[in-house]
Amino acid sequence: MQKTLKELKLRLSEIKDLEAAAAVLGWDLATYMPPGGAPARGRQIALLSRLGHERLTDPEIGRLLEKLEPESDKLPYDDDDAALIRVARRDFEKAVKVPPEFVAEFNAHSAAAYQVWTTARPANDFQAVEANLEKTLEYSRRLAEFFPGYDHIADPLIDFADQGTTVETLRPLFSELRTALVPLVQSISEQAPVDDSCLKAHFPESEQRAFGKRIIERFGYDFERGREDKTHHPFMTSFSIGDVRITTRVKENDLTEALFSTLHEAGHGMYEQGINPEYEGLPIADGASSGVHESQSRLWENFVGRSRGFWTFFYPQLQEVFSEQLSEISLDTFYRAINKVERSLIRTDADEVTYNLHVMLRFDFELDLLEGRLAVKDLPAAWNARYKEDLGVEPPDDKDGVLQDVHWYAGVIGGSFQGYTLGNVLCGQFFEAALQAHPEIPDEIAKGTYETLHGWMKENIYHHGRKFTPAELVERATGIAINVEPYLRYLQTKFSDLYTL
Amino acid sequence: MQKTLKELKLRLSEIKDLEAAAAVLGWDLATYMPPGGAPARGRQIALLSRLGHERLTDPEIGRLLEKLEPESDKLPYDDDDAALIRVARRDFEKAVKVPPEFVAEFNAHSAAAYQVWTTARPANDFQAVEANLEKTLEYSRRLAEFFPGYDHIADPLIDFADQGTTVETLRPLFSELRTALVPLVQSISEQAPVDDSCLKAHFPESEQRAFGKRIIERFGYDFERGREDKTHHPFMTSFSIGDVRITTRVKENDLTEALFSTLHEAGHGMYEQGINPEYEGLPIADGASSGVHESQSRLWENFVGRSRGFWTFFYPQLQEVFSEQLSEISLDTFYRAINKVERSLIRTDADEVTYNLHVMLRFDFELDLLEGRLAVKDLPAAWNARYKEDLGVEPPDDKDGVLQDVHWYAGVIGGSFQGYTLGNVLCGQFFEAALQAHPEIPDEIAKGTYETLHGWMKENIYHHGRKFTPAELVERATGIAINVEPYLRYLQTKFSDLYTL
Repeated sequence: MQKTLKELKLRLSEIKDLEAAAAVLGWDLATYMPPGGAPARGRQIALLSRLGHERLTDPEIGRLLEKLEPESDKLPYDDDDAALIRVARRDFEKAVKVPPEFVAEFNAHSAAAYQVWTTARPANDFQAVEANLEKTLEYSRRLAEFFPGYDHIADPLIDFADQGTTVETLRPLFSELRTALVPLVQSISEQAPVDDSCLKAHFPESEQRAFGKRIIERFGYDFERGREDKTHHPFMTSFSIGDVRITTRVKENDLTEALFSTLHEAGHGMYEQGINPEYEGLPIADGASSGVHESQSRLWENFVGRSRGFWTFFYPQLQEVFSEQLSEISLDTFYRAINKVERSLIRTDADEVTYNLHVMLRFDFELDLLEGRLAVKDLPAAWNARYKEDLGVEPPDDKDGVLQDVHWYAGVIGGSFQGYTLGNVLCGQFFEAALQAHPEIPDEIAKGTYETLHGWMKENIYHHGRKFTPAELVERATGIAINVEPYLRYLQTKFSDLYTL
Repeated sequence: MQKTLKELKLRLSEIKDLEAAAAVLGWDLATYMPPGGAPARGRQIALLSRLGHERLTDPEIGRLLEKLEPESDKLPYDDDDAALIRVARRDFEKAVKVPPEFVAEFNAHSAAAYQVWTTARPANDFQAVEANLEKTLEYSRRLAEFFPGYDHIADPLIDFADQGTTVETLRPLFSELRTALVPLVQSISEQAPVDDSCLKAHFPESEQRAFGKRIIERFGYDFERGREDKTHHPFMTSFSIGDVRITTRVKENDLTEALFSTLHEAGHGMYEQGINPEYEGLPIADGASSGVHESQSRLWENFVGRSRGFWTFFYPQLQEVFSEQLSEISLDTFYRAINKVERSLIRTDADEVTYNLHVMLRFDFELDLLEGRLAVKDLPAAWNARYKEDLGVEPPDDKDGVLQDVHWYAGVIGGSFQGYTLGNVLCGQFFEAALQAHPEIPDEIAKGTYETLHGWMKENIYHHGRKFTPAELVERATGIAINVEPYLRYLQTKFSDLYTL
């Protein structure tokens, strides 16, 4: 078995390294590449992705797995090699079921559709993207159909990002959440709006970035194994467990932009930096799912970074850095400002209470489109109506409406959004479990120390990489299956303190 | 023919893109990579290099070439496709003659030897590298032997970097040069040393870098298709004709370090940026040889950047930026300081007059080692004796002696150094030819405009990439074969003005 396993690991490690090389080229493209580099860079990234895919679908991988599985089945379930073989089998099956010609065609379409979207959005021109979106929908359906046996056509697409999650499991979860959130938002909206003007002064870029880096270093983000650079759309990217980078975007007239996006991306980054170093170079060295990954970005951004305790420690330091702008602003005013709840149009700017309403309506539209209950041409009107219904606001145009998110215009329709809300829900569970194990965590946060919280996450989540399925990981870490109650308890407690509920 | 040619171009472009991807990873490693990224990065670069090599040695390349050559032989010699097929044939033959196991073994040895050298040099420990160097010599000989039919064992190694150049052609060239240089250096050394203390004040890093970038932008280095970043050992690297980057290193107590290295690397960069855009992605989109490449770095660094005319325009600007340090220093004092001739120990710090003596003694040692006339263990003593003989100085230790250059400790013995001197010699020819065609160039330089000089280089050198052999390129551009006289005339004229000769 050892020789065959070694051969498999070598092949898997080459696939991972090709993906990592493509990721380096993508990071450079988004940070430092001069404009003239674009045409060749697209070609180079596409080549590396294709070579990785070719190697993953090599029938020899299947043969090695077949030889190994009878042996690995005898190993304990939580044996690392057994887990690696399970993960490799999953990736192999996902990859071989989709013909390479389809992958190439869909990728080419996505690249072209993305280009159209980049100009259509500022031009507020839904018509320009309509035909591409119809094609994307068609490709998305065909992609799902390569995985027959599903209950709902969205299930295979959801499974790519959130293994084991289905429409059937999501519907009751989301329904429970929506039932609780809509009246909560309603009740808050009836109250006097919070004044957040203190966040809109002029805050110089370099001080903003330095402050964000100071915070995440205390969180435990390791700059010896990471970096922070500027980009247009912040992201986290990993080239190995020893090189996990984040990027940020700064608005000098909005203190929240760089700050919370840095905390968010650092959450993703600490996850990847915390994976068991023995998994280096193997497909198991990755996040468990989009939902589990998002639970960590939201944890450090919101549960920690927008908490009163956190700012008890950091606000005096922030006031020192921006004394002119903040010396007259009380901690309470600042805390209320960064937690202002507002029914708004843009998902990425949404507060903690309204955020999931933005996500869930997108999820519903994905199902409607895939099921053929909604035509692409009717999407803008449906979008606006649903915003009115759920959030009480109506987009004045498509630019800040249906055109706002890149996902459908550069990828798949189906499976693109549920992870954001799953992340919030899981974050509620993980945070509650960590606090149950270590009731001292809130006191530590108020003292600017995060070892216990970070340590719990590392031990229970980060370390395992993809060793367990998301559902297994959640149960092992929290003792229960996915459940919205901890998250709702968190929101209720936090926002009862901020608003009259 | 068109279909076969298209197939060949596709394959060649994938090889080039794999090399470019490896170069991006190498650039990142040398500029921004956090320390934790090192282990995976080595693995990833090695993988991309191996995949490129595998594709280049694919017998299908040979079959395509065989099908194309009868057709391309009928094309005019200067037809682009004919040239591409010649270049591809050359690269293919070079690659297939060396067994992949040998390449892997030699690369692994070089990587290990380089690691040892990085600590052995500061520790002044030649013994630590001795065994590796003997192995390197053995590998270098074996590498040469894969190309039988040579006159001198160094010829195949020289041919890798400087196509068509042999020991037989280099010996008289270098002998003529040495015969002229040794008495020139001797005569200058007998005169009072120039005071260059004005260059050793404190010059803040950001102003130094900004000034260097201002100059090279005027030269014609295109920042829309390039960047300048900081590194430990400056280099130029190209990922496509649209993305050609340089790096620099700054010493705040030495104005010359960043300035002239920026000009030098920009010369290499303008060469790559100036290649015919139609060659993009093909192996013909590269410099003609190491010597021709170096002619361009030396042109912009020395022939332009250390000329009196150049500083007539730029010195007042430099004085403005560093007014505290330079306002009392005359142009003449500054000009003498940056052209100070000094018999010194370190090649990379050497002035224009002594530089080639450093290079030629290394070249001679490569031949001595390859021929077995000198044993590795005797190299340090031989090195010190030859420095005494040629430069009148004796290294106090190996750190600043035989251990100073990375080349032998991370690569091949043979073919590593001749390009530096060929570059100077060719620069003399190219510059003289450009001035003959455009006598207004010196006046333009004194006015801070470089379009004519840059235009001549672009038209006669850069544009062609590897279309012509180095010898063909030199003859086409200058009307004569390689010849040291223009370079010696340049040195005589310039240094007669600076010293009593």
